[in-house]
Amino acid sequence: MAAACTVYTTHSLNSPCYVSTPTKTQLGFSQNHLVFNSSGKKTNWRCGSSVITCLGDTVVIGLAADSGCGKSTFMRRLTSVFGGAAESPKGGNPDSNTLISDTTTVICLDDYHSLDRTGRKEKGVTALDPRANDFNLMYEQVKALKDGIAVEKPIYNHVTGLLDPPELIKPPKILVIEGLHPMFDERVRKLLDFSIYLDISNEVKFAWKIQRDMAERGHSLESIKTSIEARKPDFDAYIDPQKQYADAVIEVLPTQLIPDDNEGKILRVRLIMREGVQFFSPVYLFDEGSTISWIPCGRKLNCSYPGIKFSYGPDTYYGHEVTVLEMDGQFDRLDELIYVESHLSNISTRFYGEVTQQMLKNADFPGSNNGTGLFQTIIGLKIRDLFEQIVASKGKIPVEATKA
Amino acid sequence: MAAACTVYTTHSLNSPCYVSTPTKTQLGFSQNHLVFNSSGKKTNWRCGSSVITCLGDTVVIGLAADSGCGKSTFMRRLTSVFGGAAESPKGGNPDSNTLISDTTTVICLDDYHSLDRTGRKEKGVTALDPRANDFNLMYEQVKALKDGIAVEKPIYNHVTGLLDPPELIKPPKILVIEGLHPMFDERVRKLLDFSIYLDISNEVKFAWKIQRDMAERGHSLESIKTSIEARKPDFDAYIDPQKQYADAVIEVLPTQLIPDDNEGKILRVRLIMREGVQFFSPVYLFDEGSTISWIPCGRKLNCSYPGIKFSYGPDTYYGHEVTVLEMDGQFDRLDELIYVESHLSNISTRFYGEVTQQMLKNADFPGSNNGTGLFQTIIGLKIRDLFEQIVASKGKIPVEATKA
Repeated sequence: MAAACTVYTTHSLNSPCYVSTPTKTQLGFSQNHLVFNSSGKKTNWRCGSSVITCLGDTVVIGLAADSGCGKSTFMRRLTSVFGGAAESPKGGNPDSNTLISDTTTVICLDDYHSLDRTGRKEKGVTALDPRANDFNLMYEQVKALKDGIAVEKPIYNHVTGLLDPPELIKPPKILVIEGLHPMFDERVRKLLDFSIYLDISNEVKFAWKIQRDMAERGHSLESIKTSIEARKPDFDAYIDPQKQYADAVIEVLPTQLIPDDNEGKILRVRLIMREGVQFFSPVYLFDEGSTISWIPCGRKLNCSYPGIKFSYGPDTYYGHEVTVLEMDGQFDRLDELIYVESHLSNISTRFYGEVTQQMLKNADFPGSNNGTGLFQTIIGLKIRDLFEQIVASKGKIPVEATKA
Repeated sequence: MAAACTVYTTHSLNSPCYVSTPTKTQLGFSQNHLVFNSSGKKTNWRCGSSVITCLGDTVVIGLAADSGCGKSTFMRRLTSVFGGAAESPKGGNPDSNTLISDTTTVICLDDYHSLDRTGRKEKGVTALDPRANDFNLMYEQVKALKDGIAVEKPIYNHVTGLLDPPELIKPPKILVIEGLHPMFDERVRKLLDFSIYLDISNEVKFAWKIQRDMAERGHSLESIKTSIEARKPDFDAYIDPQKQYADAVIEVLPTQLIPDDNEGKILRVRLIMREGVQFFSPVYLFDEGSTISWIPCGRKLNCSYPGIKFSYGPDTYYGHEVTVLEMDGQFDRLDELIYVESHLSNISTRFYGEVTQQMLKNADFPGSNNGTGLFQTIIGLKIRDLFEQIVASKGKIPVEATKA
């Protein structure tokens, strides 16, 4: 299917009409504005002398997380659900942050930094600060891709800290915008068909950083604390508030199964699902709409210490209705995983055991034995379901392509 | 079906061969001993010159509770499950403690008091004391009834406190022995096909007694306390220990839904079901063998304050494996009851909604809106199921009746 209309229908592949990021002007970069009039989902793009009436059907997913971009585990799980392997654009910048598979393109929102590393230092702003990011360009390019128009997206080079020449991004079936600010700008937010916020609690973030930066990289405890504290004001001001807009929040917290645990190895993970989201019905455990706690380990299922505990129920989150599914503990064996899967409903699997199959397939990914892996996998399946429902809902709308 | 062999097959109705309680001798009453040899379930009774080989199929249920006998709510719920109305024996002693329906005969174990009220006073023993009860006669008569032999059971008159002339009890399909000591004597205990202990916590007992004796009968708080404390040593010594033998215990506790509640109006009721009991499979909630808590009130079901909470899971009780189902709170409306019923499994109903139907039919019985009524009803259904399984298991065994 792909986009209902792309510039390739009226232009050759060698001269696509896209939204580009050319000359450097004021605060980092500016961008060329294409002339267009938008009315509902139908968009008229003027490109040279042609007007192309487009009806994009790219589904746009926003994923907000603190941990920069990178080829995150979540994205690998998502593309795994769709069956294709995600790769960097062929023949392009080796430091590209983009991942492309058959169905999905993941772009990193760091590419919309308007200030490079030096620029940020000069102005005294962090990458978390909106002033270091070009939301106008982000909006226009995401809008263009959603409408089926290819764009020339800048590349922020994480190695050099510089802004590299742009790369061509064609409209995919599913566009994932991943990074610090996918829900910060209201215009961008409104383009999202589904949004996810990965909310790692401070305790877990700290435990993870100690594990990685101290044990593996030799940093001192003091420097880790300083680095976390330095990020905190901007994080709290600009990143954290986005979770109120998310359709799904994955909260990662310390376990409650072990009193006073601070190792951060056993996790309590909460999947907070907004009610009333089109094409998305929350997962439930046993009895939809009630409040349940469930320790599956018992007479039929044996688990090693400290076991597994699920909780499920309705709640409110930033004033709106949500459903929360929580898993505390970790899977030790395959039978535990399939047993849990068999008692979850609305997980949008195509066959019995698909969650387990995905988890096994990606068993080497971090979090495959706990709630982060389980809920990322389930969200992947829910996004596939959402995508298919959106496509089906658009199936009867005719595609137009006219010249002025 | 009834008994596979009764004395009526060889004797006329006017001269049945039964176990009787004739002449007064030593400590209250003694009894005639019938000559018999028992081997397994098959019993040879000698009665005059005849020997009748009997194979009783009376199912015997023991119900232990502190609250004397009386036509208890539980017994009314049980007979209601079998469809017949329970009545006192026709034309007999109006102060008889016995209740008879088509299928079930309930006898009160107070009838086996070996000391009447005066005798107890003289000896300084309570009715709770085993010395005030004739366990030999209890055993022989329950054994006879189980084997299909009618008995002449004494009557303890609760009005006069005297032992009245005996009444004839014919072997029923289901014999319920209700009272203080159904599981006290090991021989009697071994005759029980199923046993139940009603365990009312001290807090609830106290709240109930205040409600009844103070509000309705004008007793003082002090006299209520004194009366409870006077019973306690014998109760703890002789009644309470029986619960370790029960196949099902119904515990009645104060609610935990209202902090520091001591009104005793809203109850937390626990149904403790022993594992491995033949013909009895414990009720479960959602997932057999796991540990669950469930608040059904939520998005699909609205409840008034303080709501309803269920808990379910495996546990140990006096060193043996049990399954516990707990209900805290009360039903306000029919839809709450049917909603809860629809999520319970192994409740031995014959059709969807049978528990609810029974509860509605007996809505005027005490406890119909809480766990006592629910669990009594469910135990009634489980006993019907157990009875049918026992009958079915005996279906192929031939009935013998020979003369010597």
